[in-house]
Amino acid sequence: MGGELTVHHDPGSVGLVETRSVRLFTADAPLTLASGRTLGPIDVAYETYGTLNADGSNAVVICHALTGDAHAAGWHAGAKGPGWWDNLIGPGKPLDTDRFFVISSNLLGGCMGTTGPSTVNPETGNVYGLDFPLLAIQDFVEVHRALVRHLGVGRLLGVIGGSMGGMQALEWSLRYPDEVANAAIIAASSRLTAQNIAFSAVARRAIMDDPNFAGGHYADTGQSPDIGLSIARMMAHITYLSEDAFTEKFGRAPQNASRRPGFGVDFAVESYLGHQAEVFLERFDALSYLYLSRVMDYFDPFAAHELVARRRPVNYLVVSFDTDWRFSSAHSRRIVRRLESARYPVTFRDITSPWGHDSFLLVIDAYHDTLRAWFDRALEVGV
Amino acid sequence: MGGELTVHHDPGSVGLVETRSVRLFTADAPLTLASGRTLGPIDVAYETYGTLNADGSNAVVICHALTGDAHAAGWHAGAKGPGWWDNLIGPGKPLDTDRFFVISSNLLGGCMGTTGPSTVNPETGNVYGLDFPLLAIQDFVEVHRALVRHLGVGRLLGVIGGSMGGMQALEWSLRYPDEVANAAIIAASSRLTAQNIAFSAVARRAIMDDPNFAGGHYADTGQSPDIGLSIARMMAHITYLSEDAFTEKFGRAPQNASRRPGFGVDFAVESYLGHQAEVFLERFDALSYLYLSRVMDYFDPFAAHELVARRRPVNYLVVSFDTDWRFSSAHSRRIVRRLESARYPVTFRDITSPWGHDSFLLVIDAYHDTLRAWFDRALEVGV
Repeated sequence: MGGELTVHHDPGSVGLVETRSVRLFTADAPLTLASGRTLGPIDVAYETYGTLNADGSNAVVICHALTGDAHAAGWHAGAKGPGWWDNLIGPGKPLDTDRFFVISSNLLGGCMGTTGPSTVNPETGNVYGLDFPLLAIQDFVEVHRALVRHLGVGRLLGVIGGSMGGMQALEWSLRYPDEVANAAIIAASSRLTAQNIAFSAVARRAIMDDPNFAGGHYADTGQSPDIGLSIARMMAHITYLSEDAFTEKFGRAPQNASRRPGFGVDFAVESYLGHQAEVFLERFDALSYLYLSRVMDYFDPFAAHELVARRRPVNYLVVSFDTDWRFSSAHSRRIVRRLESARYPVTFRDITSPWGHDSFLLVIDAYHDTLRAWFDRALEVGV
Repeated sequence: MGGELTVHHDPGSVGLVETRSVRLFTADAPLTLASGRTLGPIDVAYETYGTLNADGSNAVVICHALTGDAHAAGWHAGAKGPGWWDNLIGPGKPLDTDRFFVISSNLLGGCMGTTGPSTVNPETGNVYGLDFPLLAIQDFVEVHRALVRHLGVGRLLGVIGGSMGGMQALEWSLRYPDEVANAAIIAASSRLTAQNIAFSAVARRAIMDDPNFAGGHYADTGQSPDIGLSIARMMAHITYLSEDAFTEKFGRAPQNASRRPGFGVDFAVESYLGHQAEVFLERFDALSYLYLSRVMDYFDPFAAHELVARRRPVNYLVVSFDTDWRFSSAHSRRIVRRLESARYPVTFRDITSPWGHDSFLLVIDAYHDTLRAWFDRALEVGV
């Protein structure tokens, strides 16, 4: 509850914010998905920071990763901490809300206010469950575009995202290059490897094989597949940190040296993973985990889009982190090579960081300096 | 069933073998474990290949890894395949059974014939379950030593093992350096990292949180924690192969291109993992998985043993594989440095192999050539 006090004294904060909701598609005017199926209504949870300037030329969209939400910056009333990318977004920060108008929304298929598989299907009165349609990154982009239009923004100055957020930025720039001046693709991939898919496959098995999953109808039973979702989250967390980061943070430290060894929480790293699972269960939904993780497996934009020479190409920033093994630098280098093959302008940085994939969420000077310079330059050049 | 035919025509095979069993400790003469607790009776499943020579100077002990068993070489009647290290052990093979007497046994705590947590405790008439005592690598070694004595062998020409087997070889050589002339430590570790522990911790959580685990009393219910053990095995398998090996074997190949995408087995890699889980369930026990994996977490022999200069030190071979990320070359290099600090003779090879941790089970020329030369040299020098 200390958040409210902090916020009013932090000049770099966007301050108190609220998540808003808007219905962007309806049953009568649904969204046609990549799969051909239609979906409506679609409600979208979103936040904005800063002010759209008179000519609408300062809008930047934030795309979140697998387990993110619309609350990227500032503080919710009574919250214990700020939004998930608050270190990036605010007055004087790299994405300076004194100059940029920032839009952040929860993904289609998510569980933080935007329509997803655990939403009630108004046609049946029951939660969609596994009847929710399979999604693609381009479906996320279509919903983002609808939100941007709703907010009265034309061509975007920029779109930025890390991990699965970077996939959305990439897809948007390839599918609608006229709508985006700049795209920042951070710690992302244009094509998951078999190992990437394997980790997600095991996570999904853990969820779906949990007896409480009940074929996706767990909303009816009052019991949720917490065990499976915990396993999925703990396993994913291992891939978010580098091995050296694990060593640095935990080493082989015992959690409770006086305890008799056993199969519980003997080591600090076991306590950490358990805690991660616990807080995750409070905020995330198993069906969303299935849907959103599967989207990444199928993402392969360079197979879907022919890259053509453009008079005014999107200006790209691609960032990787040298200890990221979830999506290693090789994934980013592949994106860079493909974009460069079409002579699109690409700035590439492989940032030195000990923290692995999670680096994209952290304050790392070389990383934030790069983002700051890139956003400043974007504003100078304009939409 | 084709195994029997094959075997009689394969000059490199030790032929038909049977696993034998011997009671090495009893309730009256139990084993005192590292923890101070006693355990007896202990039955041990083992096999031998080749013949002990007149002066007992050609004996080599094989130590198996987490999920191995006593059946390292040759064929069981009617089996579909040979023992797990058959490519190494046999007439004319690197561990040449025309010259060496090879001993292989199932670990204490295992589930392949040696006493373990799913054995019936004769005192209670029930399966031990979680009442089975926590084990340490040195407990495995004590049981191995008792078997060696039972077989009439004195000083061992060699002890060899991969992964957790290498830990046993290392522990044996440090604790009883007068009993072992040569020790080969392959793809092993003397000290797990936080990341190593993390993977095992999640696997154990998957097993213990499976409702069918029933606090370890699943033998009484007739239902076993198959879901948890499957998740554990699939996750472990990801760590056994290098990322490049996954790409090479599976890439992004669909399992069934005509199937509608969903959350099942869409990609070949998902089918592979599922198959690995399935065959594992048929042969392995969840309690053994808990006990044996926990042993590795605590293994830290260089903290336990003071290395002293020796007139006749153990001769070491340490082997790592350059794409192994379960126990990377850094783990082996650490072992080498510690042994060298005491001026023990160490041959170290970091073998180039695309296959990751699993390499220690495969025929890789540089690897097998090194083993052959090392065993030949061991025999020349003698015990």
